[in-house]
Amino acid sequence: MLDLNPVLDHLDNSLDASLDRLFALLRLKSISTDPDYKAEVRRAAEWLVDDLKSIGFEASVRDTTGHPMVVAHHAGPSGDVPHVLFYGHYDVQPVDPLELWNDDPFDPKVKTGETGAKIITGRGTSDDKGQLMTFVEACRAYKAVHGELPCRVTILFEGEEESGSPSLKPFLKANAEELKADFALVCDTGMWDAETPALTVGLRGLVGEEVVIKAANRDLHSGGYGGAAANPIRILARVLADMHDDTGRVTLPGFYDGVEETPNRILAAWNGLGETPESFLGPIGLSLPSGEKGRSVLELIWARPTAEFNGINGGYTGKGFKTVIAAEASAKVSFRLVHRQNPEKIREAFRTFVRERVPADCSVEFHPHGGSPAIQLSYDSPFLVSAKNALSDEWPKPAVMVASGGSIPVVGDF
Amino acid sequence: MLDLNPVLDHLDNSLDASLDRLFALLRLKSISTDPDYKAEVRRAAEWLVDDLKSIGFEASVRDTTGHPMVVAHHAGPSGDVPHVLFYGHYDVQPVDPLELWNDDPFDPKVKTGETGAKIITGRGTSDDKGQLMTFVEACRAYKAVHGELPCRVTILFEGEEESGSPSLKPFLKANAEELKADFALVCDTGMWDAETPALTVGLRGLVGEEVVIKAANRDLHSGGYGGAAANPIRILARVLADMHDDTGRVTLPGFYDGVEETPNRILAAWNGLGETPESFLGPIGLSLPSGEKGRSVLELIWARPTAEFNGINGGYTGKGFKTVIAAEASAKVSFRLVHRQNPEKIREAFRTFVRERVPADCSVEFHPHGGSPAIQLSYDSPFLVSAKNALSDEWPKPAVMVASGGSIPVVGDF
Repeated sequence: MLDLNPVLDHLDNSLDASLDRLFALLRLKSISTDPDYKAEVRRAAEWLVDDLKSIGFEASVRDTTGHPMVVAHHAGPSGDVPHVLFYGHYDVQPVDPLELWNDDPFDPKVKTGETGAKIITGRGTSDDKGQLMTFVEACRAYKAVHGELPCRVTILFEGEEESGSPSLKPFLKANAEELKADFALVCDTGMWDAETPALTVGLRGLVGEEVVIKAANRDLHSGGYGGAAANPIRILARVLADMHDDTGRVTLPGFYDGVEETPNRILAAWNGLGETPESFLGPIGLSLPSGEKGRSVLELIWARPTAEFNGINGGYTGKGFKTVIAAEASAKVSFRLVHRQNPEKIREAFRTFVRERVPADCSVEFHPHGGSPAIQLSYDSPFLVSAKNALSDEWPKPAVMVASGGSIPVVGDF
Repeated sequence: MLDLNPVLDHLDNSLDASLDRLFALLRLKSISTDPDYKAEVRRAAEWLVDDLKSIGFEASVRDTTGHPMVVAHHAGPSGDVPHVLFYGHYDVQPVDPLELWNDDPFDPKVKTGETGAKIITGRGTSDDKGQLMTFVEACRAYKAVHGELPCRVTILFEGEEESGSPSLKPFLKANAEELKADFALVCDTGMWDAETPALTVGLRGLVGEEVVIKAANRDLHSGGYGGAAANPIRILARVLADMHDDTGRVTLPGFYDGVEETPNRILAAWNGLGETPESFLGPIGLSLPSGEKGRSVLELIWARPTAEFNGINGGYTGKGFKTVIAAEASAKVSFRLVHRQNPEKIREAFRTFVRERVPADCSVEFHPHGGSPAIQLSYDSPFLVSAKNALSDEWPKPAVMVASGGSIPVVGDF
């Protein structure tokens, strides 16, 4: 095993040069959603290929139907070493409205932030150019100190993450053999706070469903039909209300199949982060957790599944009042999944649950909107434990293994 | 009491002349919503005044800020006779789209309908010029046969019914003394069928409420907050679902205060009309009554109160999917009232019911949209019993006392 400490010393001593390189990348306006910046996106890919070649990677810009990928390979030392795939993205979000920026978003600077800590300003610094360059700089320092990397490395940087990654899945499929590795690291996450590094080891999955309840064959006047004709808003409200019990649990049969209890030591670590309902919900004007009772807010968003209602629509919704009984009402419902919950089983359980509550003279339509399982790495994975220990050595506070409430479908593709 | 039979004979013998007068009124294009027809609306009022004067009424066109009223008075015979106020409207709805008419809507004709019966075609024939002229013709026949009317009569015809009657309430208020009577007859209703006359003796009242549930201070991403932050759609669905029990009854405390059971002989008469769930709901594509179990569809819409959801809105309702947790969700809720239910008590009961179901860190806003009590005449009223008997004598089937599921606020103003 190559000694880590001289590598860390080298990084400390060459920080200015590292920052120069990061700033050069930050100055490239790689806005992927705006066609006007197409050439600049490509320039960022070419910059990365040149930089990776300079430290011995076999690197190339790989065209797609959208923005290009950067793929790079570096052999590890001889012997049985792990092979790591590293993913990041070099594109950034648009910068409008420009007047809300204190500084030019494409002229990065080191400044002193409100807390007194040094910060880097500039678009993409924290999403995701800053993160991906830490990895490149780590490789550079290993090469400078030891002449080789501690493991075999494959790099994949994409330029479309901020515009939905349309080319990523086809690219992964077409290049599956080339991109195979023992372990994939995704650097598109954050730290817990400025002193506490975090390893995101779980990502919730997602099932989206649109449900349309249809009653009469036209809108009705509630004077003439109210009390006799089925009201689809009432049916829909009943369906949605039935989906949670009084303790906040989702009532769909089989919904919790595959959900695991989080180990006590992990729950204890999460509790140690000091997040309270007030600290978590206060900034959005709330204070009471709405999910399953008896669980912390972090457990609720990191390790528990949900049923959420993302939209509802029916009848007259304009100004004033119309005493109409609508012909139909619809809702958009999503489920955040954890652990080994099966998206398609949950979709079917939901549809059955709804059908059981629709009167025989009414009908229901479903429109699926995506389904991806959760990703949950073992908290005992040796890769993760190594990473956690290494991070804990370097930072004021121990690294924490966290999860993410949101879904990053590409992680499933890896 | 003046003998009725020679009056009826006179009406039979002078039917052609009656039709000529009705057709003259039907030819006037008294479309109240369209300013282009303002003069024509006034001409219809003037035509009515002239006709009423010709049979001895003291009649005049009365200006308002909108279209004019027609007010007319006729003394009854000496002695203690009832004083009847008769209301109708001489304005009509627009006729667009013209291409859907088989005949010119302002060139009335007697034709043979699909069932073989004679019908009159032309805008306003059944709403409401035909009805109001039957009353004028009855007065004319009484005068021709007996030289006087059987009771004291005040007439009020308005020209804004099809555009919301904006001037009616102020006019009634300003002329309350002049328009006072023992009994008001409103002729803006229909028969049960071509052989069965109907007296509408009940009109449901109405309470409208818009409710807005507010949770977080902005829309949230369900990945970051789902399972922890309150979802206003879920709260709203729970409120609405709780408003009916499994038997279809409304659960608001005190909701049924003032609701009376309809007399068995009236229910039996309604059952005798042969309306079934299939015949009533079939034309709108339904078959199962949605209201209180164990009651006929006619009882449900004529004599039972309801809680209906007329509109619901929250979160993302466009195409596709957004995993948003909305900051707020709203619904438009209306209650149809019967008998002596108190609109303001029901509004308050609803608001209390909602507030009890809104979590402490969320809030709720209410916007009132109208409130009017039901009108329910006694099925034993001597006026109604006389009218029912008279109608039953003249038609193939006995007259039926019915109610109307809808609300006509002006009736309350009388």
